Amino acid sequence: MQRSPGDVPSVIGVIGESRFSDAAHEALAEGVGRRIAAAGCALICGGLGGVMEAACRGARAEGGMTIGILPGSDRQEANPFVDVAVATGMGQARNAIIVLTADALIAIGGGYGTLSEIGFALRHGKPVIGLRTWDATRAGEHVPIVVVQTPEEAVGEALRLAATTPVPRA
Amino acid sequence: MQRSPGDVPSVIGVIGESRFSDAAHEALAEGVGRRIAAAGCALICGGLGGVMEAACRGARAEGGMTIGILPGSDRQEANPFVDVAVATGMGQARNAIIVLTADALIAIGGGYGTLSEIGFALRHGKPVIGLRTWDATRAGEHVPIVVVQTPEEAVGEALRLAATTPVPRA
Amino acid sequence: MQRSPGDVPSVIGVIGESRFSDAAHEALAEGVGRRIAAAGCALICGGLGGVMEAACRGARAEGGMTIGILPGSDRQEANPFVDVAVATGMGQARNAIIVLTADALIAIGGGYGTLSEIGFALRHGKPVIGLRTWDATRAGEHVPIVVVQTPEEAVGEALRLAATTPVPRA
Amino acid sequence: MQRSPGDVPSVIGVIGESRFSDAAHEALAEGVGRRIAAAGCALICGGLGGVMEAACRGARAEGGMTIGILPGSDRQEANPFVDVAVATGMGQARNAIIVLTADALIAIGGGYGTLSEIGFALRHGKPVIGLRTWDATRAGEHVPIVVVQTPEEAVGEALRLAATTPVPRA
Repeated sequence: MQRSPGDVPSVIGVIGESRFSDAAHEALAEGVGRRIAAAGCALICGGLGGVMEAACRGARAEGGMTIGILPGSDRQEANPFVDVAVATGMGQARNAIIVLTADALIAIGGGYGTLSEIGFALRHGKPVIGLRTWDATRAGEHVPIVVVQTPEEAVGEALRLAATTPVPRA
Repeated sequence: MQRSPGDVPSVIGVIGESRFSDAAHEALAEGVGRRIAAAGCALICGGLGGVMEAACRGARAEGGMTIGILPGSDRQEANPFVDVAVATGMGQARNAIIVLTADALIAIGGGYGTLSEIGFALRHGKPVIGLRTWDATRAGEHVPIVVVQTPEEAVGEALRLAATTPVPRA
Repeated sequence: MQRSPGDVPSVIGVIGESRFSDAAHEALAEGVGRRIAAAGCALICGGLGGVMEAACRGARAEGGMTIGILPGSDRQEANPFVDVAVATGMGQARNAIIVLTADALIAIGGGYGTLSEIGFALRHGKPVIGLRTWDATRAGEHVPIVVVQTPEEAVGEALRLAATTPVPRA
Repeated sequence: MQRSPGDVPSVIGVIGESRFSDAAHEALAEGVGRRIAAAGCALICGGLGGVMEAACRGARAEGGMTIGILPGSDRQEANPFVDVAVATGMGQARNAIIVLTADALIAIGGGYGTLSEIGFALRHGKPVIGLRTWDATRAGEHVPIVVVQTPEEAVGEALRLAATTPVPRA
């Protein structure tokens, strides 16, 4: 019953707004969740509503595993499609845990918390794929977010980059 | 595919030493893991070796779900019987997450890290069951650890107390 | 010797790159530190090198108080101009502590860690003043960073906004 | 204005109950605070009431520096004798930060949170001095808390051990 290292499935993070700023984001998030599960990967997110809930619902519909890293100290805060709810009691600092645990992250829409997760992910060398999410520039250079248009592309890029990025695990 | 609240299984924490101080602790930990899984509960622990690994191995043997909350930032540090490895990058402060997520905790043997987890658990009103673990006293009073002798008793008490303790989720 | 609430000085956060991407950033950071101290405020930062060290050096030169919230577990990692070094052992998640403790933040240059701090700050409703730092856009809207050109303007805006922003302390 | 390493004063942690379980603990805590300040050391604590407030009041009376590592996200929660209040937003997990930052810890009375801090401190190899605080035993062995009777002895032992303990800063 011991796993060999090769058995460990990838974990894909889904980050994004907890209240939809655009109705189209719900279908995108659900589609991303479905494709993560269909690829045999686990989904990790912040465990709450909006993009997080839609993505978990999609993954659950395909029989996937969903992990929610909650800001509060009560596991019951998780959306009903989270399989493994982790209560951190750390508030927004829990965003760092989502990023460290994921092999790649898909950002959908998003508020300022999502921007902090993108910063963390890039800081730790984790690939970030963007669907209608933030762009950020400094001194004329853009952050290396891989911009895509569809859930299929998002998950395809996440899997490709998770497999090939030599992650400098801080 | 949405869960009703009653569907959420209990999560039982197993805390204890990462290197066995007594050979008997390994069998106790494995037995505790087996019984947690047999009861349909998920097991959460610190994800490393010793008591954590033996408990996960026992749970896995019964087809249970195991969650490891790691101190480091690399998911690969988890023992091979962890299903869901969460990389916190927070060092020993991750002990607070194990406690907040668990409905009850079973301590087996244990070093100083285990003592910190017992303190956290009692601080948050979570039941603690002890198998050959710490006792602590102050001003003539003992901490309210439920002392038991066997894995059966440990898991039985954990389930009973998890179901009946009104947890003051701070 | 008890303080009245009005005695509590403002705490201004300085965030930015740990290695200078542009030689001009060092003088900007030192000037910001000087003016924070001259205004009677404490300076909080990540405690390491680059922008953090230059800002602390400036504040120290004016007799100010400097606080460094370190990612590691050894207080000795702090740059030599930190008065109060706090060892968190939490890695980049310590960025959330800097943001929560500051009344306003001044970003100078900056890498991906700085971007995570900007996201956290905006998420918690803390004012962010930018000197040659990130811009971020989503759906055609820019993040509300107050862009300035000089240390004088940066500290002036930080003090003005710290005093007038009703902070939703989440 | 750069410090040489030898200039860094010791930081002594004071841990204990937030509500006095015994009236004598207040005078002990205040005396400990006074002597920490008189020795030229900074005092770090959890920043709230009870033992934490009495110790800060004592240190302030001697012109000492006091640091409060708060569980919440609002700096204003600190007791009025804290000079440097750090808002962590991490709840009880902030106990790990107090321990990592201190060179030695003095425990006075104490509840379950104090027990968690004692466990963390011993786990990280930091000296713990006890004034009417917890004792803990496992397999017939006591934890290595240095038990003393007076504030003078407590601070004397803390300084002696902080100077001579080769801290394995994990």
